[in-house]
Amino acid sequence: MTTRGFASDNGAGVHPRVLAALAAANHGHAPAYGNDAWTARAVDALRTAFGGRAEAMLCFGGTGANVVALATVTRRYDAILCADSAHILNSECAAVEHYCGGKLTPIATPDGKLTPELLTPALGPTRGVHHARPRVLSLTQPTEWGTLYSVDELRTLCDFAHGRGLAVHVDGARFANAAAALEVSLAALSYEVGVDVLSFGGTKNGLMGAEAVLVFDPALAEEAAYARKQSTQLASKMRFIAAQFEAYLEGELWRQLASHANAMAARLAATLAAVHGLEFVCPVETNQLFARLPRAALAALQREFPFYTWRESDAVARWITSFDTTPDDVDAFAEAVTRELAAER
Amino acid sequence: MTTRGFASDNGAGVHPRVLAALAAANHGHAPAYGNDAWTARAVDALRTAFGGRAEAMLCFGGTGANVVALATVTRRYDAILCADSAHILNSECAAVEHYCGGKLTPIATPDGKLTPELLTPALGPTRGVHHARPRVLSLTQPTEWGTLYSVDELRTLCDFAHGRGLAVHVDGARFANAAAALEVSLAALSYEVGVDVLSFGGTKNGLMGAEAVLVFDPALAEEAAYARKQSTQLASKMRFIAAQFEAYLEGELWRQLASHANAMAARLAATLAAVHGLEFVCPVETNQLFARLPRAALAALQREFPFYTWRESDAVARWITSFDTTPDDVDAFAEAVTRELAAER
Amino acid sequence: MTTRGFASDNGAGVHPRVLAALAAANHGHAPAYGNDAWTARAVDALRTAFGGRAEAMLCFGGTGANVVALATVTRRYDAILCADSAHILNSECAAVEHYCGGKLTPIATPDGKLTPELLTPALGPTRGVHHARPRVLSLTQPTEWGTLYSVDELRTLCDFAHGRGLAVHVDGARFANAAAALEVSLAALSYEVGVDVLSFGGTKNGLMGAEAVLVFDPALAEEAAYARKQSTQLASKMRFIAAQFEAYLEGELWRQLASHANAMAARLAATLAAVHGLEFVCPVETNQLFARLPRAALAALQREFPFYTWRESDAVARWITSFDTTPDDVDAFAEAVTRELAAER
Amino acid sequence: MTTRGFASDNGAGVHPRVLAALAAANHGHAPAYGNDAWTARAVDALRTAFGGRAEAMLCFGGTGANVVALATVTRRYDAILCADSAHILNSECAAVEHYCGGKLTPIATPDGKLTPELLTPALGPTRGVHHARPRVLSLTQPTEWGTLYSVDELRTLCDFAHGRGLAVHVDGARFANAAAALEVSLAALSYEVGVDVLSFGGTKNGLMGAEAVLVFDPALAEEAAYARKQSTQLASKMRFIAAQFEAYLEGELWRQLASHANAMAARLAATLAAVHGLEFVCPVETNQLFARLPRAALAALQREFPFYTWRESDAVARWITSFDTTPDDVDAFAEAVTRELAAER
Repeated sequence: MTTRGFASDNGAGVHPRVLAALAAANHGHAPAYGNDAWTARAVDALRTAFGGRAEAMLCFGGTGANVVALATVTRRYDAILCADSAHILNSECAAVEHYCGGKLTPIATPDGKLTPELLTPALGPTRGVHHARPRVLSLTQPTEWGTLYSVDELRTLCDFAHGRGLAVHVDGARFANAAAALEVSLAALSYEVGVDVLSFGGTKNGLMGAEAVLVFDPALAEEAAYARKQSTQLASKMRFIAAQFEAYLEGELWRQLASHANAMAARLAATLAAVHGLEFVCPVETNQLFARLPRAALAALQREFPFYTWRESDAVARWITSFDTTPDDVDAFAEAVTRELAAER
Repeated sequence: MTTRGFASDNGAGVHPRVLAALAAANHGHAPAYGNDAWTARAVDALRTAFGGRAEAMLCFGGTGANVVALATVTRRYDAILCADSAHILNSECAAVEHYCGGKLTPIATPDGKLTPELLTPALGPTRGVHHARPRVLSLTQPTEWGTLYSVDELRTLCDFAHGRGLAVHVDGARFANAAAALEVSLAALSYEVGVDVLSFGGTKNGLMGAEAVLVFDPALAEEAAYARKQSTQLASKMRFIAAQFEAYLEGELWRQLASHANAMAARLAATLAAVHGLEFVCPVETNQLFARLPRAALAALQREFPFYTWRESDAVARWITSFDTTPDDVDAFAEAVTRELAAER
Repeated sequence: MTTRGFASDNGAGVHPRVLAALAAANHGHAPAYGNDAWTARAVDALRTAFGGRAEAMLCFGGTGANVVALATVTRRYDAILCADSAHILNSECAAVEHYCGGKLTPIATPDGKLTPELLTPALGPTRGVHHARPRVLSLTQPTEWGTLYSVDELRTLCDFAHGRGLAVHVDGARFANAAAALEVSLAALSYEVGVDVLSFGGTKNGLMGAEAVLVFDPALAEEAAYARKQSTQLASKMRFIAAQFEAYLEGELWRQLASHANAMAARLAATLAAVHGLEFVCPVETNQLFARLPRAALAALQREFPFYTWRESDAVARWITSFDTTPDDVDAFAEAVTRELAAER
Repeated sequence: MTTRGFASDNGAGVHPRVLAALAAANHGHAPAYGNDAWTARAVDALRTAFGGRAEAMLCFGGTGANVVALATVTRRYDAILCADSAHILNSECAAVEHYCGGKLTPIATPDGKLTPELLTPALGPTRGVHHARPRVLSLTQPTEWGTLYSVDELRTLCDFAHGRGLAVHVDGARFANAAAALEVSLAALSYEVGVDVLSFGGTKNGLMGAEAVLVFDPALAEEAAYARKQSTQLASKMRFIAAQFEAYLEGELWRQLASHANAMAARLAATLAAVHGLEFVCPVETNQLFARLPRAALAALQREFPFYTWRESDAVARWITSFDTTPDDVDAFAEAVTRELAAER
């Protein structure tokens, strides 16, 4: 059996309260495809958590949620501007391009964070129809480098985008970790700053497999509903996705789990802060850590612990903590890192 | 709480052994995206059950499985021949057309069953590139009218298709019900007769949400793997889909559940056989019943029991039994039907 | 060298005034991609001819024009209702489905003409997102059976469609033949009755290769412009498409050519009206004739004259007259038909 | 009327021999969609010119030809590696991505030329299905910076690509200029070095509107034929595209026109070589020149002559010569450039 490693929060299992909710939902028959009481309650709870106006579309997975969200705000020839580290760009096998039909326009960033300054050159005078039409700004919160947009930064980016005719999508596969780290509500990071569509993840934070697309303009809800079905993301026994979200929102379980994962990352960062030979390439703000370390140490550690080399060129490792990572897990790993780096010297 | 009705086997919950398997799989960390031990075992078990040579791609849902399976054997301009009652044609919001890029060519059938005679006119001399290129024969087993292809009929159709350059896909959302009714192995209805790709359902027969695409030509496995990811059907915590299939195949649980559902349908059919005013429009061979009854009776019954009017034009109802339908459920429903029809006279 | 036959008006060449316009346009350099004076004049002339408000997108070909027009009024999961004889359904290799992403819903008609009565069943209560969303009514004027919608019929259909949330597209590959036969303006058959987008053909009526999409809602013009580029229909040396349209509209050359072709069809119909053994399966209203005749006669004629068997099942031939068909061509063909039918008796 | 400028070879008109060929083809009826004698001859002539084995698909335009060519060698989830200056990436409104379904992977180059060294990092160990599958190397010959791959460089790149499972596509919108500059045959730059599919341009070199896709593996010809129709690139009156190619190949007219354009570019480059304040950012090897000059001079020249600013950041202008550019045109322009630059000092 695999132990708890630092490869991905996707490697973790399901929180006991979520599993219990699934068992509790297994009672009698219920209408299929989301016409059931569990889904009604989950959608209501999501609407409430996200500012009272959003329509929520429950989905199977994260790539699917991004496809549904982006389809809702694009036509076939539209360009989606995103950081060059974006998951939609690098890790979804052109799913967004194929379903939506247009193009992703990558913008280089030092730390995964887009700014008006970085975006402006991509929005200059265009040669018209020869280019895909810029239509969406897709942000990742937290970014793929574990960094965070502040509430103010998000508001500035939303205003900037709207002023140029762009809708704003947020890929929030780890959105809970952002809200937990910033100690704000889910709505404060989305509805209240002007986000148009959000992919709100659950799977990476203790759910079995459940994501939601939040559509903040009710006029777009029908589009999202059709896109969800056509893109193969409509669950027949949807109560079992809804039950996960009910448990997730109940008493802000999401915040509790994300805060814990964030704390474990902070503990690891603190422990390794002073270790020679290791450098965090981005501030550790959520549950992802990116550390440059000697190639031999990196390889030695990977023989013992599963984790990814995130950037081959300068040997940057990615470590991710989960809702179930324990202080002992962190300390054992930190000890191994320290040992390997000492051996390097 | 909703009682057990006859609207769809999608309305049923999860079999206890499947739920137990999910709980058991919730142990420690496991590699994501199918690189885990549960998936390895489930894929092996599927391969064995399907004749020893198939590659299995676990998917979230049935529409997704059909998309993946059909993408594997088509290019963008290919036509997929199917019965005009096919789910891919009528109930999947053009998901197959959108992902695969070509066209579905419907063939009218009396009972959902295609034959070489029915197919031949659609395969006559063509005007070449002006038409989508006929490339796949998609069968539904059991059909959308609950009827069955025999092993011999399947073999004849596969030979017919292959002789005309068509691959054969089977939409087996209720494939277990077919194998149970015909009392044959899963391989006997697929690999052994020459099927090329199969969508093998689990969700409608007691799983929480798990389908598999069986690819019988290993050379096509890579195509299926990419299509699964791009079409948003690759689960990150795949062990929880795999665990469902393990339980499903263990001791042929699938057969036990499907046989029970079939038996409940037979019981309902037998009870209503002699009732005046009701006519089954197709032989009841699996767990789906299609009955024509007076419009008023149909409406009255729908106020009490959830089920679909399948064909408005002549008031045909669809009733579906599930793995958890009880003899009492059947008898209570049969009694209500009998009562309504008596009231009609 | 091939003589003038009755296979298709696509087999004819280019009218001398059009060829002269091409030569005249071959003068110096001009901005590419439609930013030239010829295109500006052609677009203006089209706007004027179509009621003063339309935006015109010049295209290379007819399939392309249909793709651009339909893309302008659909999203990815939308259904386009059309006659089961429609060119977009049967003769464009799923180009519309592939580019637009949804589905064509065929409606059976006796003569290619849709009516509110025929359409109503396809617009009944739906199962929501499980079906492609009905969004466009696509009419062919004249139909693929050569028949015509009157101005009143078109207005009724547009009102019917708009009342149900559908936009109206007209495939007018032979639109000139319709306007000529009905003796009305181009606007009277499109803008004035409420058509939303029109594919206006030129190639089949004496142009070398030039079609136009008319978009009657200026708000949709940008969508059409992007769709034209992305669907590969934007010509770089567009002045040579524009010059064709200028010549075509100048003095209503289109009407003169189409009237002639219609008259030749009428002459053939009149000559053969009393011949035994031949039956026109639709009224001959434009330049297409559909005649059922004995299979042997049909085959014998095809050895001498190129034309298509349009419906194999009951041996219906399609004959098409062109702008350059002469009375002698018609009479020679009629004589051959008469001779073959006499031989049959 | 616009004079001959340096904006694009698309701005030029049609060579008189091509116009004459169009007029000559306007004779009687001919079968539509390429089943005519002109097309048969043009396809034969192309096959001969390209090494005797290629299948040629005549198309309307350059974006269309690229779509057809790339569709022939890709599936829906495939990545096409190309220079970050590639036309398919920057100037075709995501047409390739939309039709083919996958992704373009841009590689940064100093001068538009890819090398094995530049490509290798993009072909390293991948994370499998999470990325689009690298399947095609698309080269532009001459490049978008006017530079040339030598025969040896092309052979090396083809071998490199084939060794990694990639097919090789060449975007040859100006392929004639490359063959003319290198003084080799068309086959020497394509078939003989191992190119798999080629977009062979005609429009930019004196044709009215005609491009061809050359498919060097006959087994792929059927795929290309379907892709051409579905992507809206199949001309109905194809003889008028074929006639252009016949004239183009007759006596190597293409070479004569391209050599002239190249010579005019060389003349301009030579005249400006010693002018202070102007720098050619790439070697002038074909008919495209890229010159960095003071922003004010650039703006002043654009008021007089139409041409594009190709790179805003450092004020690089693009000048293109055409088959009909005269020495006087060049000298007048060179004089204006010289004058403006002198004024700057």
